[in-house]
Amino acid sequence: MIVMKTDATEEDIQRVIAEVEGSGLRAVVIRGEYMSVIGPVGDERRLDFDKVATLPGVKEAARVEAPYKLIGKEYARFLGEPGAHKRVSIGKIHIGNGEPVIIAGPCAVESKQQIVRMAEEVKKAGAHILRGGIFKPRSSVHSFQGVGAGSAQDAEEALSWLKEAGDAFDLPIVTEVRGEAMVDMVAKYVDIMHIGARNMYDQDLLVQVAQKGKPVLLKRHFGASVEELLSFSEYIAAEGNKDIILCERGIVPVGKGKSYTRYTLDLAAIPVVHRETYLPIIVDPSHATGRRDLIFDMSCASISAGADGLMIESHYNPAEALVDGPQMVTPDELKDIIDACKTLYRTKKELGRTSRA
Amino acid sequence: MIVMKTDATEEDIQRVIAEVEGSGLRAVVIRGEYMSVIGPVGDERRLDFDKVATLPGVKEAARVEAPYKLIGKEYARFLGEPGAHKRVSIGKIHIGNGEPVIIAGPCAVESKQQIVRMAEEVKKAGAHILRGGIFKPRSSVHSFQGVGAGSAQDAEEALSWLKEAGDAFDLPIVTEVRGEAMVDMVAKYVDIMHIGARNMYDQDLLVQVAQKGKPVLLKRHFGASVEELLSFSEYIAAEGNKDIILCERGIVPVGKGKSYTRYTLDLAAIPVVHRETYLPIIVDPSHATGRRDLIFDMSCASISAGADGLMIESHYNPAEALVDGPQMVTPDELKDIIDACKTLYRTKKELGRTSRA
Amino acid sequence: MIVMKTDATEEDIQRVIAEVEGSGLRAVVIRGEYMSVIGPVGDERRLDFDKVATLPGVKEAARVEAPYKLIGKEYARFLGEPGAHKRVSIGKIHIGNGEPVIIAGPCAVESKQQIVRMAEEVKKAGAHILRGGIFKPRSSVHSFQGVGAGSAQDAEEALSWLKEAGDAFDLPIVTEVRGEAMVDMVAKYVDIMHIGARNMYDQDLLVQVAQKGKPVLLKRHFGASVEELLSFSEYIAAEGNKDIILCERGIVPVGKGKSYTRYTLDLAAIPVVHRETYLPIIVDPSHATGRRDLIFDMSCASISAGADGLMIESHYNPAEALVDGPQMVTPDELKDIIDACKTLYRTKKELGRTSRA
Amino acid sequence: MIVMKTDATEEDIQRVIAEVEGSGLRAVVIRGEYMSVIGPVGDERRLDFDKVATLPGVKEAARVEAPYKLIGKEYARFLGEPGAHKRVSIGKIHIGNGEPVIIAGPCAVESKQQIVRMAEEVKKAGAHILRGGIFKPRSSVHSFQGVGAGSAQDAEEALSWLKEAGDAFDLPIVTEVRGEAMVDMVAKYVDIMHIGARNMYDQDLLVQVAQKGKPVLLKRHFGASVEELLSFSEYIAAEGNKDIILCERGIVPVGKGKSYTRYTLDLAAIPVVHRETYLPIIVDPSHATGRRDLIFDMSCASISAGADGLMIESHYNPAEALVDGPQMVTPDELKDIIDACKTLYRTKKELGRTSRA
Repeated sequence: MIVMKTDATEEDIQRVIAEVEGSGLRAVVIRGEYMSVIGPVGDERRLDFDKVATLPGVKEAARVEAPYKLIGKEYARFLGEPGAHKRVSIGKIHIGNGEPVIIAGPCAVESKQQIVRMAEEVKKAGAHILRGGIFKPRSSVHSFQGVGAGSAQDAEEALSWLKEAGDAFDLPIVTEVRGEAMVDMVAKYVDIMHIGARNMYDQDLLVQVAQKGKPVLLKRHFGASVEELLSFSEYIAAEGNKDIILCERGIVPVGKGKSYTRYTLDLAAIPVVHRETYLPIIVDPSHATGRRDLIFDMSCASISAGADGLMIESHYNPAEALVDGPQMVTPDELKDIIDACKTLYRTKKELGRTSRA
Repeated sequence: MIVMKTDATEEDIQRVIAEVEGSGLRAVVIRGEYMSVIGPVGDERRLDFDKVATLPGVKEAARVEAPYKLIGKEYARFLGEPGAHKRVSIGKIHIGNGEPVIIAGPCAVESKQQIVRMAEEVKKAGAHILRGGIFKPRSSVHSFQGVGAGSAQDAEEALSWLKEAGDAFDLPIVTEVRGEAMVDMVAKYVDIMHIGARNMYDQDLLVQVAQKGKPVLLKRHFGASVEELLSFSEYIAAEGNKDIILCERGIVPVGKGKSYTRYTLDLAAIPVVHRETYLPIIVDPSHATGRRDLIFDMSCASISAGADGLMIESHYNPAEALVDGPQMVTPDELKDIIDACKTLYRTKKELGRTSRA
Repeated sequence: MIVMKTDATEEDIQRVIAEVEGSGLRAVVIRGEYMSVIGPVGDERRLDFDKVATLPGVKEAARVEAPYKLIGKEYARFLGEPGAHKRVSIGKIHIGNGEPVIIAGPCAVESKQQIVRMAEEVKKAGAHILRGGIFKPRSSVHSFQGVGAGSAQDAEEALSWLKEAGDAFDLPIVTEVRGEAMVDMVAKYVDIMHIGARNMYDQDLLVQVAQKGKPVLLKRHFGASVEELLSFSEYIAAEGNKDIILCERGIVPVGKGKSYTRYTLDLAAIPVVHRETYLPIIVDPSHATGRRDLIFDMSCASISAGADGLMIESHYNPAEALVDGPQMVTPDELKDIIDACKTLYRTKKELGRTSRA
Repeated sequence: MIVMKTDATEEDIQRVIAEVEGSGLRAVVIRGEYMSVIGPVGDERRLDFDKVATLPGVKEAARVEAPYKLIGKEYARFLGEPGAHKRVSIGKIHIGNGEPVIIAGPCAVESKQQIVRMAEEVKKAGAHILRGGIFKPRSSVHSFQGVGAGSAQDAEEALSWLKEAGDAFDLPIVTEVRGEAMVDMVAKYVDIMHIGARNMYDQDLLVQVAQKGKPVLLKRHFGASVEELLSFSEYIAAEGNKDIILCERGIVPVGKGKSYTRYTLDLAAIPVVHRETYLPIIVDPSHATGRRDLIFDMSCASISAGADGLMIESHYNPAEALVDGPQMVTPDELKDIIDACKTLYRTKKELGRTSRA
């Protein structure tokens, strides 16, 4: 929609119409008693709204359509392909439109011994996929950056530990790709490529990861709206890779004083994403809250809101973990959480309502 | 804690010590290799940290203790009165530490006929308390302000309709007190006095409402941290009224672009409040999301996060409602929501974990 | 504009048209290849967009016009009354479209002696209006609430001190009205009635203060957009009182970690307000930064951005102030600031550009 | 500082002391009447506060020192090297502690002809450094991504245009490095390497850019606090590259409704950065406001707040620009802005106060 200023002249209006038509769209003009509005009809992607906004007499120029199409339900309905709900499959594990899938493991891979032991523990607790960070994005350069941060050789060794641990217990593996330099190497080892919240806006990384053709786990940036999360996941889809798993992990808290959690978990993003797209969405209560004592409740809430899965950090000895100890649950707690989530999922399902529109 | 600057002099340190001791506290000095820290020991309320922060050589001066005491668990433990979990009772209805309590009704009272009919509907759907707005806080002066906004007489008449509707179906009633002028009149009619999100920071209103001695429903401001919500509820407790029901109703969304909800519901606030205080906390998914199609999922999520109740807007004909039609559910939908919430509450309870610390 | 869903039926479209026409407006329909848009033509205030949004097949329904009219430039141009820039006059002092006006004084009135001495000091420093808080809105109930908080008698005595101080040095006075109960009494004494940031959303207070017919200083809430500030100032204008002075005093900081200021000063709000309305806007760098060492720079920046004035807290002995010592400048510093601001104002004026559109 | 819970046991306290001492620091214990606090004395970087926070009985564990040291004034004072204020030099141009430096040019390089013409225009207007984007970070994959986005060859050609344009008019050049793949190539051509706001958190990119040894322009992320901006600039300094120019470009707006600007410019960040570090900080009013009509006022405000320079987008024909037309000023407007800024800088300097502490 292009809204003209109250004092726009007829010449201003004609100039806008010319621009719209010059882009191959039709221009419908609504002449109000107070101001005029021009509606471009056709493929909005062909019109440069930014340019239109600079024309004389224009008050506002904004798209009506969503900035994402390939992943959107509305576009699929328009194409006559409403289809079944999308699920992302990793071997025999399916994320989306079914039982919640649990990704678990330590925040950071610390040693071969540690990750193998954790693989065993999370398997026993009922998790489906193993996680473990090799390159840790940290706020301070003076903090531990992950065992893979030293050299490509260190990184490859750590990746091989993670893979060995996954293989030993029949668990697909996922790890974060922090920079473009590591895309190829990580793709060789993992089953799901994880793009962290801080990198959500990094289009080059998104494109390169997408091109590997493996499922991509994309976390929402802590300052991003849901619309931005969807817009940036479109960068992956545009490479022909629609195996995208979104992840809500909390946004920056508001207000003065303490929020008592690291971030604010936005669980309404779950049904919103289900209504807007076919993509599955999981929740990471560990990073969102930063507090072990809140993981159980927030996991239950996530599943009841319709989450397709959870990503939970666990360590056999949280107090010895090199990174993020305060937010890691023990394997026993993990089992409790997984059991509760399965029960709540089934209870809600029996109520005859799914979170999908 | 009072942190001194790196280049603070011995004289600066002595001046701070004098200030701390002059306020009747003891000063413990930690001389670091890099900077010094002074810890005041005693009742922190007696020390003016703002004043200390202005003294030469002082980098930061901040309390260690929470700004709320009367409602806090830590203070109760200190007093040796950990007590049972607090519940707020309205007749035979108890909010807190038990089955979820449902407050339901239209956003705005529109007529006697409408509120009586809605009382019947919400009672049938299983709700426990009837709500209905008489003074509506609106962003635009040109919007409908509520049937009670015209005159004191209009307001009293609308209150009497609400009371009659509640009495007819044995439902306690709650309505928002928008300004101080209405405190006395509202207190005469309602069972719970509701302070809206926009008024959370209005201490005078908090104090005057508290003095009426009736249970108070205090909504979190959409720009307030949890700590602020608790700090301001302390204004009520300080009047000797601890019958406080907190309500999470969403905070301002972050980021550019659409959030697809009016506000961002912060469900982690529920277990946080349960860990910090004895107060019950309920959730208002109607105002938080502003979307009828999200109320079911977000109600389920709230209860699974441990909410002590819900406040849901309902109307027999949302499209005809004078205010907030898009977020109102029909009585049939309300019944579905209440049934689902009861089931999920019991399922979670059987898991042997409560959200209370 | 009313945007229909991709799969809206013809019946859905007709229902919306009926609603628009039933409200006395004309409906222009744009049938896109992908979705339809309906543009209501006429006085948008007559159409209930909230209700339209609930109709089947409607994706979005939003006004095109601003929610404020009486204070808006666009509406004035529409009415053919572009007029001169508005200035608010208090005796011989004019705020808006001229030399910056300086409001100064202590955060809180503490005693007659203190406020009289401060009146003398700020007069000597070059300030035009005297400020002093009598009712202090504080986050903690356990903090000092202002000398007027004890009783109506205390409040009236403090008001009389403030008035006496102003009269003695020929300075108009301004103080914050924290609650409705004090509106009448404050109006008897002061020249400008100040509504604090925490009360910006309190329509009842706005209306009551507006009705006193005195100039109103309305501070932007720290969680409010500029549009909300303007929407709420319309509550004052709707009472026939257009003597409104807006005040930018900072919004909540974003992000994890320290901002090093209490709030984030949004100086772009100044030219934005000048382009949207005729109202003058001043800046309060004291509350915005909370730091004495930043007041000079931020005052200079405010004036260079086009601010019509400043509100600065000053105390002859900041370390002894009962409230907000860390942000108060001494009278000598105040003089430096005022002198610098006058010089910068004139320098910019000579550049031949005003901040007004 | 490590704050213990009210009910922490003596054993809990001893465990914390052991942890502190085991890390090579000294532990000072303050036993309050209500709770105990333990202060670690020594190099805080050796203690893992995250781990301490997981120990039983610990309520909070937080560093007292800033997360940045190498760029901090306090650390320099501690080392006895308070030094002169830092300036970053690019040939004969010095940024910091002197006349404001103006970086100008189009948002995006579009063609050789366009950038050469713009170089001539900005030189005539009085700018010191030429900017032009070759890889544009965009929210939608369907928008123009910059002339260099097609292939490495396209990118190198565009870089050569930019360099040629700079050389022809004796202007150093700066361009954004969007991904790691382009670091080497960009470093070959430009004088200043620019890291965009969306990439501020991308440590790998920061490290790789830093290693090139050229001055780095680091923009603040729109969701980052000032502390985070400084923390992440430490990643550059830790590589031995202290030629860091910070850039304030606005943070996400707060509140419901319109802000009327793209982002919120936080000008208080300027004096804050000057007080905390030796680094120069410039302002980008173009991206911050997104509105051509606000650039003049916000440039004046930035310089008056003490900014060391500005980065302004300019195009000879904003309506034809491929990206961000609405925010670009014409070369004539640019000249007005530069002239005004120089005048205001000198006026403020003559007032005898600098924004530096």
